[in-house]
Amino acid sequence: MERTDKIEKPDRPVRASRAPSRFDMILDSVRRLLRRGAISHLERMVNKMHPADVANVLHHVYTSQEKRTVFELVKVEGNKAQVLAEMDEGDLTEILADVSSTEIATLIQNLPDDDQAYILTTLPDERAQEVLRLMKPEESAEVKDLLKYEPQTAGAIMTGEYFALPANTTVQEAIRKLQSTDIGNIFYVYVTDKEEKLIGVLSLRQLLGSPDRTLGSMITKEVISVTPETDQEEVAKQVARYNLLAIPVVEKDGTLVGIITVDDIVDVMREEATEDMLKMSGTKIEEEDTFMTSSVLSAVRMRVPWLLTNLVGSMISGLILWTFRFTIQEVVALVTFIPVIAAMGGNVGLQSSTLVIRGLATGRIELSDVRKVFLREVSIGLIIGLLCGVVTLAVASVMHINLTLGLVVGMAMLCALVMSTTMATIMPVILKRYGVDPAVAAGPFVTTANDITGSAIYLGLATAFLSYLK
Amino acid sequence: MERTDKIEKPDRPVRASRAPSRFDMILDSVRRLLRRGAISHLERMVNKMHPADVANVLHHVYTSQEKRTVFELVKVEGNKAQVLAEMDEGDLTEILADVSSTEIATLIQNLPDDDQAYILTTLPDERAQEVLRLMKPEESAEVKDLLKYEPQTAGAIMTGEYFALPANTTVQEAIRKLQSTDIGNIFYVYVTDKEEKLIGVLSLRQLLGSPDRTLGSMITKEVISVTPETDQEEVAKQVARYNLLAIPVVEKDGTLVGIITVDDIVDVMREEATEDMLKMSGTKIEEEDTFMTSSVLSAVRMRVPWLLTNLVGSMISGLILWTFRFTIQEVVALVTFIPVIAAMGGNVGLQSSTLVIRGLATGRIELSDVRKVFLREVSIGLIIGLLCGVVTLAVASVMHINLTLGLVVGMAMLCALVMSTTMATIMPVILKRYGVDPAVAAGPFVTTANDITGSAIYLGLATAFLSYLK
Repeated sequence: MERTDKIEKPDRPVRASRAPSRFDMILDSVRRLLRRGAISHLERMVNKMHPADVANVLHHVYTSQEKRTVFELVKVEGNKAQVLAEMDEGDLTEILADVSSTEIATLIQNLPDDDQAYILTTLPDERAQEVLRLMKPEESAEVKDLLKYEPQTAGAIMTGEYFALPANTTVQEAIRKLQSTDIGNIFYVYVTDKEEKLIGVLSLRQLLGSPDRTLGSMITKEVISVTPETDQEEVAKQVARYNLLAIPVVEKDGTLVGIITVDDIVDVMREEATEDMLKMSGTKIEEEDTFMTSSVLSAVRMRVPWLLTNLVGSMISGLILWTFRFTIQEVVALVTFIPVIAAMGGNVGLQSSTLVIRGLATGRIELSDVRKVFLREVSIGLIIGLLCGVVTLAVASVMHINLTLGLVVGMAMLCALVMSTTMATIMPVILKRYGVDPAVAAGPFVTTANDITGSAIYLGLATAFLSYLK
Repeated sequence: MERTDKIEKPDRPVRASRAPSRFDMILDSVRRLLRRGAISHLERMVNKMHPADVANVLHHVYTSQEKRTVFELVKVEGNKAQVLAEMDEGDLTEILADVSSTEIATLIQNLPDDDQAYILTTLPDERAQEVLRLMKPEESAEVKDLLKYEPQTAGAIMTGEYFALPANTTVQEAIRKLQSTDIGNIFYVYVTDKEEKLIGVLSLRQLLGSPDRTLGSMITKEVISVTPETDQEEVAKQVARYNLLAIPVVEKDGTLVGIITVDDIVDVMREEATEDMLKMSGTKIEEEDTFMTSSVLSAVRMRVPWLLTNLVGSMISGLILWTFRFTIQEVVALVTFIPVIAAMGGNVGLQSSTLVIRGLATGRIELSDVRKVFLREVSIGLIIGLLCGVVTLAVASVMHINLTLGLVVGMAMLCALVMSTTMATIMPVILKRYGVDPAVAAGPFVTTANDITGSAIYLGLATAFLSYLK
C-alpha cells in the first residue's frame, strides 16, 4: 500500500494558535515610542508601514492627539491619502477635524472616486461642500454623482472609474488603451454601445488572445449586474454566488454607471455580518466603526431602546409570577424550576432563530423553504423538549420527593421548548415578509418572549394540578 | 447656489425591498416543473442556468430523488463539474452517493485542484481513495498534496495552480506564456528563484509595460503571504486588510506552495461569520452547509451539549431560589422581579460579549485594547444599571407600595448589570488568551452565568434587608 494514499482527515478542525498577532506587536512598539516621545524613530517606522496598517494603528492608539501625531508622520502624500481611505468613519472624523479643507482637497485628489466619496460622507455637510468646491471641477462632479445615492446601496459603494470600450475595438487597440489608462483595478473590459449601454464583458485574460479580433466577437453577453438601488447585502450575495471580481452597476435602461470591485465586497460582507450580530444581541445600529471610538453615552443611547423594551417584557414575566403567587406560596418548591424553564426556552429559541436569520441572510434559506425549516425546527424542539423534560422530571421528583411536581415540570419543559422553537422560527420569517430585518428578532427579543410563555405554561400547569402537588 | 451642490445624506440607511428574489422565482418554477414531471421543459431551463444557480436549486429542492433528477439533467460535462464545485457538503454527499467512482473521476478531471480536493473531502474515505486511483496520476498527486493539510487552514483551501516565472523572464516571454497556460484565474505573476522560493510579485496590469524589461526589475519584493498552517480566518483578515486579489502560501523556508484567491476568501468570510453566530447561539458546529440538509437527529446532537450545560447552569439558579425560599415566602412580592433582574443581566451581558467577540474576530479590538474596552463596557453597564435601577425602583415601589422593596430591587439591578458587563467583557478575552474561540462565551453561556449571579445578588440583598421589607 502506498503511504501517500492515506487521506488525513482530522475529525474536528484544530484552530491555529491565538497568540499575539504580528499586528499586536507593531501596536505595542508604536505605543511605546509614543510614550517615550521617540518621534523620529516612530516616523521611520510609520513610513515603512503599509497604509492599511497605519490606519489600523490609528484605530488602536488611545487619544485623538496620538492619532493626529501618527497621521502627520506619514510623509508621502499618496500614502497619507491611502491611510485616509482605509480608516474607519469614527477615526476619520477625529483626524479630519484638525485638517484644513484645502489640505483635504489636495490629499484626496488622486484617490479613486469611491474612496473620495467615502471620506466626504464622514465630514459635516458644510465642510464636505467646501472640500468639493476646492477640488478640480471634473473630479468633484464625479464624486457628487456617487454622493446622491442612498448609503448601503450599490450606487453608494460603486466607482465610476471602469474600463469600457466600444464593440468594434480590436484586441490590439484595447491593449494599447489599457497601457495608457490611469484606472487602478481592472479585472474586466466592459463593452458598451454608443449610448453607454452595457452589451457585454470580457476578462483581462481573454484579451491576450488573437490581436486582430474585435472585442464584440469575444464578449460574454449575459452579464450579471445590479442596479444602483440594489442593497449592498444583495450585491455581496451575487458577487459571492457567481465568484465575480467586479459587478457592473447598470441603470434600468441598460446604461452602465459604475462597477463594484470584490475588495469592496469583502468589506461589505464583514460589515453586514457585524451589523447582523449586533442587531441579534439587541444593540441597535452600533456600527463596526464605533467599537471603541464612539462615546460611552452614544453607545448607551444605542443600546437602551431594546433594553427598555425588554425591561417591559420581563416585567410581564414578573407579573405572571405575581399572578400565580398563591400557587408559589403553597408549593414553594416550584420556584426551583422557574429559571430552568425560562432559560431553556430562551436558549433553544435562540438557536432556532439564529439559524433561520443567518440562513435568510446568506440565502441558504429562501422564504419558500419556510415550511420545511419550520417542521424541522419544531421536530428538533420536540426531541430536545422530551430529553430535557425527562431530565427535569427526574431531578424535580428526586429533589423534592414529589412525582407530580416532576411530571408538571417535565411537561412544562416540553411545551415551553416546542413553543419556543415555533416562535423563534416564525418570527424572523414574518418580519422578513414585511420588510423588517429579521436579525432584530433574535437575542433579547426571543429570550423575553420565551420567558413570558415559559412562565405562563409552567405556573398555569402547576395551578391546574395544585391539589395533587401539595 | 448650485442645485447639485447639496449632498443628500439620508439619516438612516433605508433598506431595499425584501420581496421574493429573482432566485426565489427560479426555485418556484423548478419545483412546479418537478411536481408536474415536465422533465424536458426542466432540462431546457436547467441547461440555461449558471452552474452556481443549479447548485443553489439543488440545495433547495425537497427530496434526494429530486436533487438527483435535477443534477442528471445538466448535460454539458464541464457545467456538471462546476455544479459539484459550487455545492454544499451536505448536498454533495447526497448527490454523489448515487454516482459511480469512475464517473466522479471523469467529472472532476478538469476542475482546479482546490475544487477537486473539496469534493473528495465530502466522500467517505474508501470512496475518495478509489476516485483518486481512477484519476490521472499527475492530477491525483496534486490533490493529495492539498488533502494532507488540516481543514480550515490556508493549506486546505489553497490551489497549487498559480502562474510563477523566473526573474530573468522578459515581459514579452511572460505574455506568451500567459497565452498558452491553462491556469484559470490569474491576478498576479509570482516570481520565484531556482528553488521555487518566492522573491516577488507583479500584477497582470504591470505586465503590459515595456516588453523588453525582465520581471525581476519590476517586482514588488515585500510580499504579504501566509504559511500553509495559517488559520483560514487569519487569511481572510489579511486579504481584507490589504485589499488583495490573491495571497501566496509560502512554507517557512520561503518555498511557494500555492495561492488563495479572493473568491475563495469571500466564501471563508461567510462561513466564519456563520460559524461565529451559531456558536454564539450555542449551536456547536452545525455548519452553514447543514442548515437544512442534515438530519434532525444530527442537529439535535449538535445542540444538546450546550443545552445540557445550560440546563445544569439554570438549575444552579433554581437552587439559589430554593435556598432563599423562606425569604420568598415571607415577601412573595419579590417573585415579581426575579425574571426582570435575570433577563436584564443576560441581555446587557449579551450586548457586551457580542461586541467584544466580533471585535476580536475582525481585528477591530486587539488583545492589547482590552483595558480600554473593559473600562468602556463597565461604564456603559453602570449608566444602564442606574437607568434600569431607577425604573425598577419606581415600578416596584408603586406596584407593591413598598419603598424598601423598590430600593432593594433597584440596587440589585444596578449590581447585576455592572457584574454582567464585567463578566461578559472578560470571559471572551480570557478564552481567547487560552486559545479557545471566544464565540462560545456568548449567548446561552452569558445568559446562564448572569441568571446565577443576578438571582444571588437580588435574593441576597433581599434577605439582608428582610426585616425592613416586611
